[in-house]
Amino acid sequence: MTDASIIDGKAFAARLRERVGQEVARLKDDAGLTPGLAVVLVGEDPASQVYVRNKGKQTLEAGMQSFEHRLSESTTQEELLDLVETLNADPEVHGILVQLPLPEQIDSAAVLDTIDPTKDVDGFHVINAGRLATGQDALVPCTPLGCLMLLRHHLGDLSGQRAVVVGRSNIVGKPLAQLLLGESCTVTIAHSRTRDLPAECRNADILVAAVGRPKMVKGDWIKPGATVIDVGINRVEGEEGKTRLVGDVDFDEAVKVAGAITPVPGGIGPMTIACLLANTLTAACRARGLPAPDLTL
Amino acid sequence: MTDASIIDGKAFAARLRERVGQEVARLKDDAGLTPGLAVVLVGEDPASQVYVRNKGKQTLEAGMQSFEHRLSESTTQEELLDLVETLNADPEVHGILVQLPLPEQIDSAAVLDTIDPTKDVDGFHVINAGRLATGQDALVPCTPLGCLMLLRHHLGDLSGQRAVVVGRSNIVGKPLAQLLLGESCTVTIAHSRTRDLPAECRNADILVAAVGRPKMVKGDWIKPGATVIDVGINRVEGEEGKTRLVGDVDFDEAVKVAGAITPVPGGIGPMTIACLLANTLTAACRARGLPAPDLTL
Repeated sequence: MTDASIIDGKAFAARLRERVGQEVARLKDDAGLTPGLAVVLVGEDPASQVYVRNKGKQTLEAGMQSFEHRLSESTTQEELLDLVETLNADPEVHGILVQLPLPEQIDSAAVLDTIDPTKDVDGFHVINAGRLATGQDALVPCTPLGCLMLLRHHLGDLSGQRAVVVGRSNIVGKPLAQLLLGESCTVTIAHSRTRDLPAECRNADILVAAVGRPKMVKGDWIKPGATVIDVGINRVEGEEGKTRLVGDVDFDEAVKVAGAITPVPGGIGPMTIACLLANTLTAACRARGLPAPDLTL
Repeated sequence: MTDASIIDGKAFAARLRERVGQEVARLKDDAGLTPGLAVVLVGEDPASQVYVRNKGKQTLEAGMQSFEHRLSESTTQEELLDLVETLNADPEVHGILVQLPLPEQIDSAAVLDTIDPTKDVDGFHVINAGRLATGQDALVPCTPLGCLMLLRHHLGDLSGQRAVVVGRSNIVGKPLAQLLLGESCTVTIAHSRTRDLPAECRNADILVAAVGRPKMVKGDWIKPGATVIDVGINRVEGEEGKTRLVGDVDFDEAVKVAGAITPVPGGIGPMTIACLLANTLTAACRARGLPAPDLTL
């Protein structure tokens, strides 16, 4: 048996960003419209600072406007809501992202639900969750959207495939299950209370791991030939005291069994920001009443 | 092997209505609050007329106020939206139900999304779908809520049970899958594109059929001892030219294999209006800032 083919999320994300850039250039020429993304960072969390910097950089590279708002750790809920309202009203801003986590004096749900749903490029607003859950056009959370794009690219039509999603978070597992159901997969959602998780996983044509536990999914949990999407990004101790990133799947074992697999890093990770740019483009087009471009690669 | 026990939805619904009536009486005494349900019927559909009459009757029997609005078949979208806005603003109305289907000149989704989500006792508003999908307090569609109540009553803790929901409608299959996931079941959603539906069903500790196809689920699709919930209500030709109601499950076969099963009629059907009354009570309590009573029986 040959090893699984590696689904190169990094290369796919680069092509997706390029496609977004082309569409942005066309929007400027044809409609005089430059999509704009506003990112709000509250406090000094180092990981969040890195994410926000990367988002801003890639937004500019795609030819969009980037608006960064950095607020102090002691920002009040009212101040943050005021900023969100200002961004809601700003016609140059088509997407708004409030970087999580927020300091504890702030009610995150209230902030996310204050964002205009048509600018909610993270897809976390309750109206976007409801639209997704009822099969309507929605802005879809970026990580599950990235998973779906890679699966469609790799497998084509997903109809009738048995998909097992391990993890039931609001930002990955649950929305991804909705997306796969929308593609007419038979979808199982498994989680920490699932009785025989290895057996559930062995039933999957498409196996998605999104639990945040390093190397939890073993090789013998995987049906031979299955497509494995590893959403986990876990920092573990490596050699000589250094840390390194591993997924929720034991890659070395899984690669011998699966038909195709996303690596960590270089799999789903890079797709997230690329999908954020895609969502911002979609939001900008819809705001103008223009059809959103098909970004399927 | 003995036959399955029969889950008596009719008796359970009667007890639930009684419990709602007791809580309504207490609300009147303690808080001077009488819950009110407004039902809007557009046109002359005979089945809808029967439903609306039953809803009004049971609302009054529970001690609530019932407001019926009957509009002609030629009602415009604007007229209907005006009525919904009036009901949204009426402090005596705690629940609003617009009977479906609506005539074709009317955009049903627009009407449902105009209902104040806190009065949306059918649970069809996009915000309630989103709240359910993200694990927040929601008004939950009545039929899936009825299924959940019967399952909890019959099985107790559902955690870790393998639930298979056949059918992915927005009013039954999808919200029920969310509810069962909230109970920590391992949930599979199957549907017309599922490859080996009998095999999927045989994996279920809890099997829910909600597809609208008479007697589709056969006895040998059922794991011995499983709990079977039959949401189907199909009218078929019976003896001597009469019609009769059958479910989506072949009851005569299934009763020999299952551990417990809901009959048709007398299973899920009667639960729907009882849950509508329960939702109206919940909405009235929340509108006053009072805790909604626990209606678990």
